[in-house]
Amino acid sequence: GRRGIPEAILAEGKTPDEVADLSTTALETTGRAVVTRAGRDVVEAVRTAVVDGGHDADFDRDARARTLVVREDGGEPPEVDATVAVVSAGTADAAAAGEAAVIAREIGARVERVDDVGVANLTRFVDVLDDVRAADVVVVAAGREGALPTVVAGLVDAPVIGLPVSSGYGVGGDGEAALYGMLQSCTVLSVVNVDAGFVAGAQAGLVARAADAGRRTDS
Amino acid sequence: GRRGIPEAILAEGKTPDEVADLSTTALETTGRAVVTRAGRDVVEAVRTAVVDGGHDADFDRDARARTLVVREDGGEPPEVDATVAVVSAGTADAAAAGEAAVIAREIGARVERVDDVGVANLTRFVDVLDDVRAADVVVVAAGREGALPTVVAGLVDAPVIGLPVSSGYGVGGDGEAALYGMLQSCTVLSVVNVDAGFVAGAQAGLVARAADAGRRTDS
Amino acid sequence: GRRGIPEAILAEGKTPDEVADLSTTALETTGRAVVTRAGRDVVEAVRTAVVDGGHDADFDRDARARTLVVREDGGEPPEVDATVAVVSAGTADAAAAGEAAVIAREIGARVERVDDVGVANLTRFVDVLDDVRAADVVVVAAGREGALPTVVAGLVDAPVIGLPVSSGYGVGGDGEAALYGMLQSCTVLSVVNVDAGFVAGAQAGLVARAADAGRRTDS
Amino acid sequence: GRRGIPEAILAEGKTPDEVADLSTTALETTGRAVVTRAGRDVVEAVRTAVVDGGHDADFDRDARARTLVVREDGGEPPEVDATVAVVSAGTADAAAAGEAAVIAREIGARVERVDDVGVANLTRFVDVLDDVRAADVVVVAAGREGALPTVVAGLVDAPVIGLPVSSGYGVGGDGEAALYGMLQSCTVLSVVNVDAGFVAGAQAGLVARAADAGRRTDS
Amino acid sequence: GRRGIPEAILAEGKTPDEVADLSTTALETTGRAVVTRAGRDVVEAVRTAVVDGGHDADFDRDARARTLVVREDGGEPPEVDATVAVVSAGTADAAAAGEAAVIAREIGARVERVDDVGVANLTRFVDVLDDVRAADVVVVAAGREGALPTVVAGLVDAPVIGLPVSSGYGVGGDGEAALYGMLQSCTVLSVVNVDAGFVAGAQAGLVARAADAGRRTDS
Amino acid sequence: GRRGIPEAILAEGKTPDEVADLSTTALETTGRAVVTRAGRDVVEAVRTAVVDGGHDADFDRDARARTLVVREDGGEPPEVDATVAVVSAGTADAAAAGEAAVIAREIGARVERVDDVGVANLTRFVDVLDDVRAADVVVVAAGREGALPTVVAGLVDAPVIGLPVSSGYGVGGDGEAALYGMLQSCTVLSVVNVDAGFVAGAQAGLVARAADAGRRTDS
Amino acid sequence: GRRGIPEAILAEGKTPDEVADLSTTALETTGRAVVTRAGRDVVEAVRTAVVDGGHDADFDRDARARTLVVREDGGEPPEVDATVAVVSAGTADAAAAGEAAVIAREIGARVERVDDVGVANLTRFVDVLDDVRAADVVVVAAGREGALPTVVAGLVDAPVIGLPVSSGYGVGGDGEAALYGMLQSCTVLSVVNVDAGFVAGAQAGLVARAADAGRRTDS
Amino acid sequence: GRRGIPEAILAEGKTPDEVADLSTTALETTGRAVVTRAGRDVVEAVRTAVVDGGHDADFDRDARARTLVVREDGGEPPEVDATVAVVSAGTADAAAAGEAAVIAREIGARVERVDDVGVANLTRFVDVLDDVRAADVVVVAAGREGALPTVVAGLVDAPVIGLPVSSGYGVGGDGEAALYGMLQSCTVLSVVNVDAGFVAGAQAGLVARAADAGRRTDS
Ligand SMILES: Nc1ncnc2c1ncn2[C@@H]1O[C@H](COP(=O)(O)O)[C@@H](O)[C@H]1O
Ligand SMILES: Nc1ncnc2c1ncn2[C@@H]1O[C@H](COP(=O)(O)O)[C@@H](O)[C@H]1O
Ligand SMILES: Nc1ncnc2c1ncn2[C@@H]1O[C@H](COP(=O)(O)O)[C@@H](O)[C@H]1O
Ligand SMILES: Nc1ncnc2c1ncn2[C@@H]1O[C@H](COP(=O)(O)O)[C@@H](O)[C@H]1O
Ligand SMILES: [Mg+2]
Ligand SMILES: [Mg+2]
Ligand SMILES: [Mg+2]
Ligand SMILES: [Mg+2]
Ligand SMILES: [Mg+2]
Ligand SMILES: [Mg+2]
Ligand SMILES: [Mg+2]
Ligand SMILES: [Mg+2]
Repeated sequence: GRRGIPEAILAEGKTPDEVADLSTTALETTGRAVVTRAGRDVVEAVRTAVVDGGHDADFDRDARARTLVVREDGGEPPEVDATVAVVSAGTADAAAAGEAAVIAREIGARVERVDDVGVANLTRFVDVLDDVRAADVVVVAAGREGALPTVVAGLVDAPVIGLPVSSGYGVGGDGEAALYGMLQSCTVLSVVNVDAGFVAGAQAGLVARAADAGRRTDS
Repeated sequence: GRRGIPEAILAEGKTPDEVADLSTTALETTGRAVVTRAGRDVVEAVRTAVVDGGHDADFDRDARARTLVVREDGGEPPEVDATVAVVSAGTADAAAAGEAAVIAREIGARVERVDDVGVANLTRFVDVLDDVRAADVVVVAAGREGALPTVVAGLVDAPVIGLPVSSGYGVGGDGEAALYGMLQSCTVLSVVNVDAGFVAGAQAGLVARAADAGRRTDS
Repeated sequence: GRRGIPEAILAEGKTPDEVADLSTTALETTGRAVVTRAGRDVVEAVRTAVVDGGHDADFDRDARARTLVVREDGGEPPEVDATVAVVSAGTADAAAAGEAAVIAREIGARVERVDDVGVANLTRFVDVLDDVRAADVVVVAAGREGALPTVVAGLVDAPVIGLPVSSGYGVGGDGEAALYGMLQSCTVLSVVNVDAGFVAGAQAGLVARAADAGRRTDS
Repeated sequence: GRRGIPEAILAEGKTPDEVADLSTTALETTGRAVVTRAGRDVVEAVRTAVVDGGHDADFDRDARARTLVVREDGGEPPEVDATVAVVSAGTADAAAAGEAAVIAREIGARVERVDDVGVANLTRFVDVLDDVRAADVVVVAAGREGALPTVVAGLVDAPVIGLPVSSGYGVGGDGEAALYGMLQSCTVLSVVNVDAGFVAGAQAGLVARAADAGRRTDS
Repeated sequence: GRRGIPEAILAEGKTPDEVADLSTTALETTGRAVVTRAGRDVVEAVRTAVVDGGHDADFDRDARARTLVVREDGGEPPEVDATVAVVSAGTADAAAAGEAAVIAREIGARVERVDDVGVANLTRFVDVLDDVRAADVVVVAAGREGALPTVVAGLVDAPVIGLPVSSGYGVGGDGEAALYGMLQSCTVLSVVNVDAGFVAGAQAGLVARAADAGRRTDS
Repeated sequence: GRRGIPEAILAEGKTPDEVADLSTTALETTGRAVVTRAGRDVVEAVRTAVVDGGHDADFDRDARARTLVVREDGGEPPEVDATVAVVSAGTADAAAAGEAAVIAREIGARVERVDDVGVANLTRFVDVLDDVRAADVVVVAAGREGALPTVVAGLVDAPVIGLPVSSGYGVGGDGEAALYGMLQSCTVLSVVNVDAGFVAGAQAGLVARAADAGRRTDS
Repeated sequence: GRRGIPEAILAEGKTPDEVADLSTTALETTGRAVVTRAGRDVVEAVRTAVVDGGHDADFDRDARARTLVVREDGGEPPEVDATVAVVSAGTADAAAAGEAAVIAREIGARVERVDDVGVANLTRFVDVLDDVRAADVVVVAAGREGALPTVVAGLVDAPVIGLPVSSGYGVGGDGEAALYGMLQSCTVLSVVNVDAGFVAGAQAGLVARAADAGRRTDS
Repeated sequence: GRRGIPEAILAEGKTPDEVADLSTTALETTGRAVVTRAGRDVVEAVRTAVVDGGHDADFDRDARARTLVVREDGGEPPEVDATVAVVSAGTADAAAAGEAAVIAREIGARVERVDDVGVANLTRFVDVLDDVRAADVVVVAAGREGALPTVVAGLVDAPVIGLPVSSGYGVGGDGEAALYGMLQSCTVLSVVNVDAGFVAGAQAGLVARAADAGRRTDS
C-alpha cells in the first residue's frame, strides 16, 4: 500500500466469501492480506480459500483484536527501526488497541503493548512508565471518559495519539465523551475517530517511519 | 432557606439596582444576603443600598468567585461539624470552585481549598492528597476534558461531586466534554450541570450536614 | 473493592460463561460476587459454576433489578449505620432503582424502597414522605421527563441523587430529557448518567458511610 | 386576523421606526396594533407615531410581557365566553406567560393569571388550584427543567398547553430541557416552541373559542 | 381514567402475557381495556385471556392503528357532543393517526378521518376541506418534512394539534424534522412528541370535552 | 470566474477598506466586482475607492439583498437565454432570495422574482403560479419550517432548489428546521446550506446555462 | 408520475407481497413499476405476481443498486436528449449511485457511469474527466468525508448534485460528515439527503429535461 | 516547557495587563514568552512592560497568526533537525496555520509554509507538492468542508495532522463539518480540535523531535 500502509480489508459489512475473495487477490498481488473486524467464520473462510488456492502461507490471527494477517511463506514486513507503544485502559479497549498494534507491526515498527492501566488506578501505569517512555510514539486507547491519553501525554515526551473507544453508556456513550475529552485535552495530543484502531496504528507507523528515516539519513 | 441552603441571588441577568433591592430584602428578612455572579458594579450597588438603609452589616466579597455575602453584624452561619474539600484544576475553574466553596461555607461546613492541581501534572495533586483525604465530601471543578474528578475519586474514599466548567474550545467546549466525561467516569462520581458551583456547593453542604447529623445523633 | 464499593461484574456484553468465570474468581478472592444486568441464562451459568466448583454459597437474585449477589456462606456485608432511600416513579424505572438498591446494600447501608410514586399522582408520594425523610440520603430514579427528583428534593432535607432512566420516546427519549431536566433542576440535586443504577447506589453508599463515620467518630 | 388571532408585530430585529410604521398601518386598517418583544424605545416610537398621525387611541403596555396593544378609541376585542388560565413558575417565565396572556385576551377570552408557583414549592400551587380548575384551558410557562405543566396536568381536567422558557444554563439550557421534558410528559399535554408565548396564547384562545362556540351553538 | 382519558396499556416492551393480565384487570376494574402498539400475538393473547376469564366482552381491533379496545358487553364510552378531525398525509402516518383517533373516540368524541392528503398534492385536501372545517379540533399527523399541519392550520379556524411521525430518513429522519418544522410553524399550532398518537388523541379529546362543556353549561 | 460564476467578495468579516481594495482589483482584472453581505459603510468605501481610482463604472446596489455590483461602463453580463424564478415566503427571506437573484443575473440568466408567498396563505402563490411555471429553474427561499419549496415543487415541472433561511426561533431555529425539512421533502428538491443565497443563485445559474446550452447546440 | 418522475415503490419496510401488489397495480395503470431498495425476495415476489397476473413484461434488475424496473413489453421511457453523469467514490457508494442512475434513466436521460474514483487517488478521476465534462448535469455520490463532489465541481462546468452516503463510522458517520461537508463545499453544489439516490437521480433528470427543453424550443 | 513545548500564554479572555504580567514573568524565568490570540493592544502592553522592566529582548510579532514571541537577546530556540510543513487552504485558515507554524518553530523545527492551496483549484497544490513531500511531518489547516488534509495525505508519505478551522456557515459551520470530515477521512490522518493551531503545531514539533532523535541516536 501507499506510505507503507497495508491495504486492509474491513470484514464488517461483507460476507465471509467476499472477504475470502478479496484476501486471496491481495495475497496474490501483494504477498499479504490484512483483515480487520474479522469474526471466526471470516477467518475460516479465508483460511479455506487460501489453502484451496494452493498458497503456502502463514496465518496470524489475533482473536481479541479481531484481525487476521495472511502472508506468503517467508514474506516479512519491512523493518522500521522505531518503536510504537500501544497502551489501553480496560478490557473494552483491547480490540481497538489490538487493531492499532497489528497495523503498526505490519508497517514494520516494533510494538510494545501495555494493557489494563486505567486512570482509576494510576499506580499500575507508573510501574510501566519506563517502557512507554522508551517508545518513539504512543497510541493510547480509552473508552468511557477517555482520560488516559491526557495523563500519559503528561508523563512521556514522545507524540501521543489518542484512540477513543465506543464503550461507555448513556449520554456521551459510544465513544463521544472519550473523543470530545481527547480533543479538549489539556496536554498535547492528536486523535483519530472512535474505534479507528486502523488509523491510529497507521499514523503511529508513519511517525515511526519518520523516526527511522531520521536514523537512516543521519547514519 | 430550606435544608439550610441560603436563597442565593443570581446577579447575572439583573441590573445592579434589582440585585441591591433583593439583597436588602434578604438581609432584613433572613439576616443574610448571598449574591453570586456579581461584578464590581453589583457589589457597589449592594454596599450602597445596605449602608444607606442604615444596616450594620459585614461584607464578604470573593472577587475570583464573583460572590458577595452580606451578614448582619454578629450573625454567623450555623456550625456544621464536617469538612468539604473544594479542588480545582486551573485558573479557568477558580470561579466555579469559589462559588461552591462560599455556598458550602454558608451552609456551615468547614471548607478546604486545593487549587491548580491539573491532570497534566499529577505530582502536584499527590502533595496535597492527605488534606483532601481528611474531608467528608469533595467537590472537584474541572474544565476542558474534565478528567480531574475521575482521578481524585480513584484516590479518596469520601463521595466526590464533579463540577464541570465551561472552559474549553471547539467541539465539546463550553463544558460539554467535561460534563460527558464525568458522567462516563470509570470511578464513582455524581455530577452537577456546567458551571453550577452553587449546586455543587449546596449538595456538598447537604452531605456535610448528613455527616454532622451522624456525629450528633450518635453522641 | 475500593471505598467499600464492590467490584461489580457487568454481564451485558459478556457471555454467560465469561460471567461465570469472573464470578467464581471474585468469590474466591473476595468472598463475594456482584453481577449486574444479568439475564436468566447468566444466573444459571453462575449458579452451576459456583456449585460445580464446590463452593458453599448463598445466592441473592433480584429479577427486576437484574442483579445477582453470590456470597460465601456466613459472609455478610459490612454494617453501615445509615439509611439510603431508593424512590422510583414507574415500572420502567424499577430496574435501575433495583440496581442502585442492591449496590447500596452491598456497601452495607440499610435500604428503604419506595416505588410507583410518579409526579402524575403526587398524593401517593405524600403518603410515604415520612419514610423518605427518615433516610440519610435519597436516590430518585425517573424516566420520561424526569421530574420526580426535583419534587422530592423540594420536600426532604437529605441529599438527593437523581438517576435518569432510558424510558421515554421520540425526541428526548432514551433518558436524555430526564438527565437534562435533572441537571436543570430548580432544587438542589446531583445526578449520574442514564441508567447508571450502579453509580447512584455506590455514591449513595459513600454518603451513608460518611454519615456513619460521623456517628462513629463522635461517639 | 384569521381565526380571530391578531396579526402581531414582532419588534425584535426591527428598528423602532419600522415598528412604528407597521403599527400605524395596522391601526388604520384593522383598528388595532399588537406589538410583542417591545422595549421602551419601541413603545415611545409607536406612541409618537400614533399621536403624530392624529389617531385617538388607547395604549395598553405590559412592561414585563414586553407587549403593547394600541386600539382605536372605543374599539374592543370580541367577547369570547371562556377563560384561559396562564400559570408561570418563576420570574424568568413571566415574560413568556405575559405574552401568552395578552394574545389570549386580544382574541377575546377572559384571562386568569397565576404566577410564582414553582415545583420546588408545590403548596403554593395547591392554594390556587380552584382558580385554575375553573378555566376552560390552561397555559403553563416553565423554564429550567420545565416540570410544572406535568404537575398541573395531573391536577386539572382542562387541556394544558406547555410553554417552555429559555431560562436555564449549561447543558439543556436555553429551554431545551424544558421543551424535551414537556414532550416526554407522563401526563397529557401539547406544547409550543421555546418562548413562543404568542403561539401558546393564540392556541389557548382558539380552544377558548371552541368552548365558546359550544356555548353559543347549544344555547 | 382521569380527565376522561382511558388508562391505555402500551404493549411495546411487554410480553403478550403481561398485556393480557393488565387487560383483564382493566376490564374488571373499569369495564374497558385500551391497548396500543399491539401486534397480532398480543391481540390473540388478550382475546384468549378475556374469553377464558369468562367475560362477555366486545373486541374492537384496528390493525393499521395497532390498537385493541375491549369493552364489557353493552358498555359504551361517554358521549361528548363535539367532533375531532384526524388528518394524515401518507401511509406511514396512518398508524399514529389511527392511535389518535381511537383514543379520541374512547374519550367520547365523534371522530372524522381524512387520510392520504399530503402537501405534494394539495388539491386532494381542498376536496375534503369542508369536512375538516366542521370539526371542533383537528389532529394532523405528518412525517418527513411535516408540513401538512402548517397548511391545514392556514385553512381552518379550529385549534390544530400537530402529530409528527417517525418516517423520513437521513439527517432529520425519525420524526425530528417533522417535529422541528411543526414547532417553527408560521401558522398557530401546538404539538406532541414524535409518534405520540395517544397524547394527540387525548389532548384533542380534552378540547372536545371543553367544547362540549360549553354546549352543556350554556344550554 | 469558473463556470461563469462571478468571484464574489463576501464583505462579512472584512473591513470596508479590505472590501474596497478587493473590489477595485476585481474591477481592474475582470471588469466587474460583486460584493455580498455588504452594509452601507462597505458600499460607501467601495464607491469612494472606485471613483478615486478614476474608474468609469456603474454601481448596482440592492439594499435588501445587501449586494453591490460594480461594472465597467458598458460592460454587461453574458446573455444566458433561460429564466431563473426566485420565490420567497416572507420578509425574513428577502435577503437570501435577493442574493440568489443577483448572482443568477450576473451569470447572465433572466430572473423572475416572486415575494411574500408563504404557506400560511397559499392562494397568493396560486395567483402567480403561471409566472413560476414559465421558468427553467426555481430557487425557493424559506425560513421557519421551510415548507414552501415542497409545495412549489408539487406544482411546477422545473427543478427546484431549496434555500433555507436562518429565521425561526427556539429549537430548530437558525434555519435548521428549514434545512432538515427540505432534505426530507416529499417532493423532489435539491438544497443548499442555510442562508447560502450565493450558492443557490449560482447553482440555478448553472442550470440556466445548461438549458441555454441545450438551446444553442440544437439550433 | 408528475414532472416525468416515476412513482417509485420503496421496498424497505414493506413485505414482498405488499411490494408485489403495488407493482402490479403500477404496471397496470402506468405501464411501468419502479422498485427501490429491493432485496432478492422482493424481486422474486414481484416477478411471480407479474407473471401470474398474465402480464407480458420486461424485467430490469440492478443488484448493486437494489432496483427493479418492470415495463410492459415494448414500453420505453421517454427520450430526453441530455446526459446525466453519475460518479461514485467507492464500493459503499455504489448502491446510492446506482439508484440515482436508474431513476435518471427512467426519466429518459442518457446516463454515464463513472465508479471508483475517490479523492484518495485523484489521478483515476483525471483519466475520465472528459466523459464527465460532456454531461449536462453530474450526480456525485460520496460517503466518509464526502469530499469528491467538491473536487468534481472544481473541474467541470455543469451543475453538480452532491449525494452523501451513509458509510463512515464513529462521530460524523451515517453520512452526516459527508452531508455537512457538501453543504459547506467551497465550490458550488446543491445536495440531497443522505442515501437519497432517488432524489438525486430525479433532480438530475429534471435538469436534463430542462436542457432538452432548451434543445427543443430552440430547434 | 515539558517535551520542549513552550508554555504559551493564551491572550483570549485575559486583559492586556494580565498578559503583560504573565509575559514578563515567563521571560524572566524561561528566557522566552510565547503569546497566542494576541491583538494589537496586547502586543503593545507586553512590549511596554518588557521595555519598562529593563529587559533587552527581541520581539517577533506575526499579525496574521496573532502571535507574539519575546526572547531574551541572543536566546534561540533549540535546533531540531527536521522540517514541519504547514499548509493552508484559504485566507480564513491563515491564522490557525500561522499559530501552528510559530509553535513548531519555537520547538525548534524548520517550518515550510504553503498557503492558498484549496481543493477547489488543485493545480496550485500540485505545483508545490515537492516542497511538502520534503517535510518530515505536515500540518494541514482547512475550514468549510475541510477536504484538503485528505487530499494532501493521498499525495505525501509523511504523517499528516489535520487542523480544522472555524470558518464555514450554516449547519456544520464553526469548524464542525471540517472536523468531522477529517475524522472520516479515507486517507490516514490524525486531527486536533477546531482552531487548535497551538496543539497541531506542538504535536508536529514532537514528531519532528522524534525524527531528529532518530537522526541523532543513529549518528
Ligand atoms: N451496572 C453497572 N453500571 C455501571 N458500571 C458497572 C455496572 N456493573 C459493573 N460496573 C462497573 O464496570 C466496570 C467494568 O466492569 P467489567 O466490564 O466487568 O470489568 C467495573 O469497574 C464495575 O465495577
Ligand atoms: N401509545 C402510547 N403512547 C404514549 N403513551 C401511552 C401509550 N399507550 C399507553 N400510554 C400511557 O403510558 C403510561 C404507562 O403505560 P404502562 O407502561 O402500560 O403502565 C400510561 O399512563 C398510559 O396511559
Ligand atoms: N454570500 C456568500 N455566500 C457564500 N459564499 C460566498 C458569498 N460571497 C462570496 N462567496 C464565496 O466565498 C469565497 C471566499 O470569498 P472571500 O472570503 O471573499 O475570498 C469565494 O469563492 C466567493 O465566491
Ligand atoms: N492558542 C492556544 N490554543 C490552545 N492552547 C493554548 C493556546 N495558547 C496557550 N495554550 C495553552 O493553554 C493553557 C492555559 O493557558 P493559560 O490560560 O494562559 O494559563 C497552557 O497550557 C497553554 O500552553
Ligand atoms: Mg478511560
Ligand atoms: Mg481537566
Ligand atoms: Mg418522571
Ligand atoms: Mg420549572
Ligand atoms: Mg409531510
Ligand atoms: Mg416557510
Ligand atoms: Mg469521499
Ligand atoms: Mg477546505
